[in-house]
Amino acid sequence: MNEQHTAKAFDVDLQDLARMVAEMGGLAEKQVADAVDALAKRDTAMASRVTAADVSIDELQREIEEKAVLTIARRQPMAVDLRAIVGALRLANDLERIGDLAKNIGKRVIALNAEFPPPKLIRGVEHMTDLVLEQLKAVLDAYAHRDDSKAMAVWRGDEEIDAVCTSVFRELLTYMMEDPRNITFCIHLMFCAKNIERMGDHATNIAETVHYIVDGRPITERRPKGDTEISALAGMSN
Amino acid sequence: MNEQHTAKAFDVDLQDLARMVAEMGGLAEKQVADAVDALAKRDTAMASRVTAADVSIDELQREIEEKAVLTIARRQPMAVDLRAIVGALRLANDLERIGDLAKNIGKRVIALNAEFPPPKLIRGVEHMTDLVLEQLKAVLDAYAHRDDSKAMAVWRGDEEIDAVCTSVFRELLTYMMEDPRNITFCIHLMFCAKNIERMGDHATNIAETVHYIVDGRPITERRPKGDTEISALAGMSN
Repeated sequence: MNEQHTAKAFDVDLQDLARMVAEMGGLAEKQVADAVDALAKRDTAMASRVTAADVSIDELQREIEEKAVLTIARRQPMAVDLRAIVGALRLANDLERIGDLAKNIGKRVIALNAEFPPPKLIRGVEHMTDLVLEQLKAVLDAYAHRDDSKAMAVWRGDEEIDAVCTSVFRELLTYMMEDPRNITFCIHLMFCAKNIERMGDHATNIAETVHYIVDGRPITERRPKGDTEISALAGMSN
Repeated sequence: MNEQHTAKAFDVDLQDLARMVAEMGGLAEKQVADAVDALAKRDTAMASRVTAADVSIDELQREIEEKAVLTIARRQPMAVDLRAIVGALRLANDLERIGDLAKNIGKRVIALNAEFPPPKLIRGVEHMTDLVLEQLKAVLDAYAHRDDSKAMAVWRGDEEIDAVCTSVFRELLTYMMEDPRNITFCIHLMFCAKNIERMGDHATNIAETVHYIVDGRPITERRPKGDTEISALAGMSN
């Protein structure tokens, strides 16, 4: 009876953790969407809200870690349950970094101030963002449903984002070389594009964590890593 | 007797974890130093070795996580011991990212290929690296000796790195605007500088983790965050 009660209490702990991670994921998705929206709409007020909202993601990470540690200490879980808890810690970590990257984009929107790049240059960044948000949504679903095959699809789907990132960098480089007055905002856009590419890498990390939670083993195969912006720069310099 | 034996075995587990983290820290320090050395010496062979060596850091992270999870499952630790284990997980995470950033610098050295920036431009990046390596060494010492005050000194010492990063960005921007042919390698150097600044942020995270291990509570005060390169760019665009 008492043991049953403990088991039930433990299930509640695990459900709470999963719920907190899902909430954090939702916040991170919103931050990413809003940050790039602020960039596209030249909305510095929205950008300020994004930079301010990052603390709530950081707090959720702290709460998840606290909850995870308490659960391990109280319930002394083994095997799959332990992986679920360690996995929640790792997901919270990646989601916190995605939030930081969105915040960084918000800061750049504010720094760009009046001087805003032509919309056609931002379109590439928006396209990258759409791809990343799809990845993020898919991997959070995979986590919610412990869906390993869906997670692995996300894990393999990062190449496209890298490819778009490369073409965005090429376009920005050409623009910088045409006129030095374009350099400053093009650099901001390059860092924005790089931030979004890195969000994709974190979505990939989350996919690896979901696989670890479900399967218990890390992924051994090498991820098919697409060209990064580095090759775009190399291309220009040759 | 049996309990004593278990306690001893647990101490050994904790010591093993701390040793593995220290080893990982040493590898990360070496990777950072070698990557920037390769940049300064235009040594693409050394850069290739850096990019290749990153896997050993990734493997150590996996081993630390595995060991941590097994230790929690076997020994069911409480309070401070549990924090030591969770702390090891967090340190391994930050060290793995520092390794990734060093690898990224290595990739850029290879991409720069024959076309290398003038040494005076690299000096600023080297200076940043010296500061980061000092921070990293100090915070790993703080971890080894559970020295909270030393950790907090690192935590507060990140401002200087940010300030140097800002001046490096200013210098690179001027150089790009003078001649479009400088743009490509200046962008690589900007990303290198940004990578090093982020290594400093990870050293700060590690300091927070050491505080958490020793003190049991997260740091509540806001970190004195110095100007970042964003303000340098904003400065140029006004």
